[in-house]
Amino acid sequence: MEKKILLTDCPDSRGLIAKITNICYKHQLNIVHNNEYVDNVTGQFFMRTELEGIFNDETFLLDIDQALPEGSHRKLVSEPCKKVVILVTKEAHCIGDILIKAYSGAMNIEIAAVIGNHDTLGGLIEKFDIPFHHVCHQGLSREEHEEKMLDVINSYNPEYVVLAKYMRVLTPNFVAQFPKKIINIHHSFLPAFIGAKPYQQAYDRGVKIIGATAHFVTNDLDEGPIIKQDVIPVDHNFSAEDMAMAGRDVEKSVLSKALAKVLNDHVFVYGNKTVIL
Amino acid sequence: MEKKILLTDCPDSRGLIAKITNICYKHQLNIVHNNEYVDNVTGQFFMRTELEGIFNDETFLLDIDQALPEGSHRKLVSEPCKKVVILVTKEAHCIGDILIKAYSGAMNIEIAAVIGNHDTLGGLIEKFDIPFHHVCHQGLSREEHEEKMLDVINSYNPEYVVLAKYMRVLTPNFVAQFPKKIINIHHSFLPAFIGAKPYQQAYDRGVKIIGATAHFVTNDLDEGPIIKQDVIPVDHNFSAEDMAMAGRDVEKSVLSKALAKVLNDHVFVYGNKTVIL
Amino acid sequence: MEKKILLTDCPDSRGLIAKITNICYKHQLNIVHNNEYVDNVTGQFFMRTELEGIFNDETFLLDIDQALPEGSHRKLVSEPCKKVVILVTKEAHCIGDILIKAYSGAMNIEIAAVIGNHDTLGGLIEKFDIPFHHVCHQGLSREEHEEKMLDVINSYNPEYVVLAKYMRVLTPNFVAQFPKKIINIHHSFLPAFIGAKPYQQAYDRGVKIIGATAHFVTNDLDEGPIIKQDVIPVDHNFSAEDMAMAGRDVEKSVLSKALAKVLNDHVFVYGNKTVIL
Amino acid sequence: MEKKILLTDCPDSRGLIAKITNICYKHQLNIVHNNEYVDNVTGQFFMRTELEGIFNDETFLLDIDQALPEGSHRKLVSEPCKKVVILVTKEAHCIGDILIKAYSGAMNIEIAAVIGNHDTLGGLIEKFDIPFHHVCHQGLSREEHEEKMLDVINSYNPEYVVLAKYMRVLTPNFVAQFPKKIINIHHSFLPAFIGAKPYQQAYDRGVKIIGATAHFVTNDLDEGPIIKQDVIPVDHNFSAEDMAMAGRDVEKSVLSKALAKVLNDHVFVYGNKTVIL
Repeated sequence: MEKKILLTDCPDSRGLIAKITNICYKHQLNIVHNNEYVDNVTGQFFMRTELEGIFNDETFLLDIDQALPEGSHRKLVSEPCKKVVILVTKEAHCIGDILIKAYSGAMNIEIAAVIGNHDTLGGLIEKFDIPFHHVCHQGLSREEHEEKMLDVINSYNPEYVVLAKYMRVLTPNFVAQFPKKIINIHHSFLPAFIGAKPYQQAYDRGVKIIGATAHFVTNDLDEGPIIKQDVIPVDHNFSAEDMAMAGRDVEKSVLSKALAKVLNDHVFVYGNKTVIL
Repeated sequence: MEKKILLTDCPDSRGLIAKITNICYKHQLNIVHNNEYVDNVTGQFFMRTELEGIFNDETFLLDIDQALPEGSHRKLVSEPCKKVVILVTKEAHCIGDILIKAYSGAMNIEIAAVIGNHDTLGGLIEKFDIPFHHVCHQGLSREEHEEKMLDVINSYNPEYVVLAKYMRVLTPNFVAQFPKKIINIHHSFLPAFIGAKPYQQAYDRGVKIIGATAHFVTNDLDEGPIIKQDVIPVDHNFSAEDMAMAGRDVEKSVLSKALAKVLNDHVFVYGNKTVIL
Repeated sequence: MEKKILLTDCPDSRGLIAKITNICYKHQLNIVHNNEYVDNVTGQFFMRTELEGIFNDETFLLDIDQALPEGSHRKLVSEPCKKVVILVTKEAHCIGDILIKAYSGAMNIEIAAVIGNHDTLGGLIEKFDIPFHHVCHQGLSREEHEEKMLDVINSYNPEYVVLAKYMRVLTPNFVAQFPKKIINIHHSFLPAFIGAKPYQQAYDRGVKIIGATAHFVTNDLDEGPIIKQDVIPVDHNFSAEDMAMAGRDVEKSVLSKALAKVLNDHVFVYGNKTVIL
Repeated sequence: MEKKILLTDCPDSRGLIAKITNICYKHQLNIVHNNEYVDNVTGQFFMRTELEGIFNDETFLLDIDQALPEGSHRKLVSEPCKKVVILVTKEAHCIGDILIKAYSGAMNIEIAAVIGNHDTLGGLIEKFDIPFHHVCHQGLSREEHEEKMLDVINSYNPEYVVLAKYMRVLTPNFVAQFPKKIINIHHSFLPAFIGAKPYQQAYDRGVKIIGATAHFVTNDLDEGPIIKQDVIPVDHNFSAEDMAMAGRDVEKSVLSKALAKVLNDHVFVYGNKTVIL
């Protein structure tokens, strides 16, 4: 008995759930867990179906394809453990949390390699017997630097690229190589602060909560589809540095929770939003 | 076009989703929203299906009944606004929140009447043109008192009985009149405190968070199926009275959120648990 | 034995706490609770001292004034219950929560009057025997409308003006009448949305949390000093209307918590920030 | 210029703040941050004073001692980085979070050594060049096992002993060696579950939130003074194993936050409570 996950994403039409679950029934696949969602504004249908049984992928997907309308996406996923390449700069909190979770089996992730534009975190990464590549950006144009990183990334052929506090802006060309495949963690606040020193801005504004947002990276100036957000309370006792420290805790927690959803195939990207089933 | 909700609760078997959604399809009912859950430990199946179309309840439910296995429960609900009778003692915070939400249309509730074992809240209730019955417990045995309350409650024939800080223990006989129909809000803490002065106990113990639990009332000494729980942080600055005041805020919030789930038919009671779809 | 609160707000200098507490000691006033804070960036000192004893306000404050440096503010507060005028438009959730808390003694507030630019909430307000003034804005210039409101407000001589979902922008002239005395509740999100339909914008952006901010009103386009912020999680299942409904719960909770801090003299306004002791 | 922290814990009496801050003033020590709290029920006074200046510890403390009443405790702390020995069993989440925080300088901690009653975590600990001692309990009486652990612990002379998911009960004799010096992380729920499989019990009970409590270890069957508590929401979709996984996240977060408070000298233990200034 195998376990696989069928992901369906298509225009809604009457009877879709019936059609798809009928096909599962016909193929003697047991539905362990099923979640669906229809966006009533746009009429898009999403379904995530955990199946158990003996699979003949080819004939099963043939039946599914015949049942679905034009413009449908479907995917049958059999491997929960995803290969990723992680980009970092100098900060240890996000990559550290992922390393410990990967080490202890608490996250379905295979960290193929870590790339840093600084070498600060090399020592930490290598403790866990994971290749660390220092791809220094100094003296290079943005395009040259990304080209070197792309060479490294592509040599591992990862399913996702994770920006674990990678502090440089990526070019549209780089982003275009990995559509819906780059996950970033963003410091973000109430109200949102953009610019070089967000925690200093939050401090100057006297905010009472600070937060973080994990999202897919797109080329919009606006950040891409949001996967997870959370906040923690702060008060007047927090210096800008205290806020940054508190922010690190929520950043690492939000990124890890977002990755858990993505790596276990719970996340559909749809327009500039996510549907999480 | 009408909207109705089909609630299905039965032993799981292969193809159940397909069978039920096929019947909806055949009756030309559109599935606006569907959620299902299978308890893999006990093998029980739960589904909540929001339907839209022109209903022939009789023939539709006949088809559904033929598709479901032995021991199934199903219900087709067409009226979201539920009639309730609310029991109170002296505290205004929970009933006050419900009154404001009912008044402003923020809760699908029809408050048929409020019963108090004290008359403290009569003035507040009557401001909202809702009948208030003072059923005093003094000089009566517990059974006599409940008998008088039952007369009042039954005269309104409510769908639910809500205990909005009703501070007396109900007898098994009373509870048995309203199976899965009495909703209570319980102060409850980490660790849980039982007894007459829970906030004093929480203070004595030096807890750092206090909470509240909304649940269905059963006859177990242990409280019944939990619908909603939440907490708020406290610290050493909180006196026992401060903790009680903070507790009131979380109590009212938890009770209102639990009622919203129950009144909109999202809650299945199953054994001593709830499944909320 | 009386209880009073001494609020001190002045440039920091060595020995300030010693000087002030010495004076309390000399006047045989017992310090029940003391909190102080120094903003190390600007060198401003804040202290809130709850005192108990027999007060001679004049001689006590004379001593305090002599001890404090140039440019100091100090206030001796004896009355916790504050008189306020509340401005509303059509939404009941914030004013409703305040009404219930005032009615049940859970908030140190005296609601002198409520003013609505619509008459929607008149019925609710009058249930609680509080004067409701319908000051309609139609056919009036912004200045004329505010002039009429100012007449009503000033006739009550309130300590604070509370905007409980008052949906019109106030002019600098109006705001200037009540420096640090107007408290507003603002829907605000991650990222912040400005404009006519904030919950529609939040929905369009696919946010995973929504929040609210209570703040003092100033003339900056940017909102004034923040008193309290909080958020609640939402997900793809929430329509724009569902988000607005969830937002109402957090709005009312944040406004009530902010008012509790302000009305009990815990809040110092300092530049564009608050210090809450 | 040095920074030190004065911790005072004594029976309250009029003028205490004035006396202590006067002495600081006289010694030309600047008060950077001051927090005090009086427990009005028991009349105990607590003060935490961050000082800056040139210290003559001996004469300063002599003055302080003369100012304080009988039965006072005071401590002048100059070293924020505390030496600890950590006890573990098999689970990596709590120790992993501490290791990363220590490695990246986000926690004022010096991990002198880690002791495991299993050797599961030895590999992880040694990656960080920290001594790992496997003190196996098999074939030993509880007293013999603790004797061997005490030998190891005492050889490092730590300020605190941290139980980072150490899964064995400690004897009163062991606990008595480290009064107010052992910090434990406890799974704890609403309602609290005691016994071998707490997450299974939480699952069976159908709770909607689970939590964790960090506390000092005492000999009471009841757990000792609580330092920090927090919770996370769960629902019917969580299996007992899912609850355990969610529990691990809140356990590690609560333990790290409690340690930050303790290691930075913010925590007073008083009776069976903590005061955190």
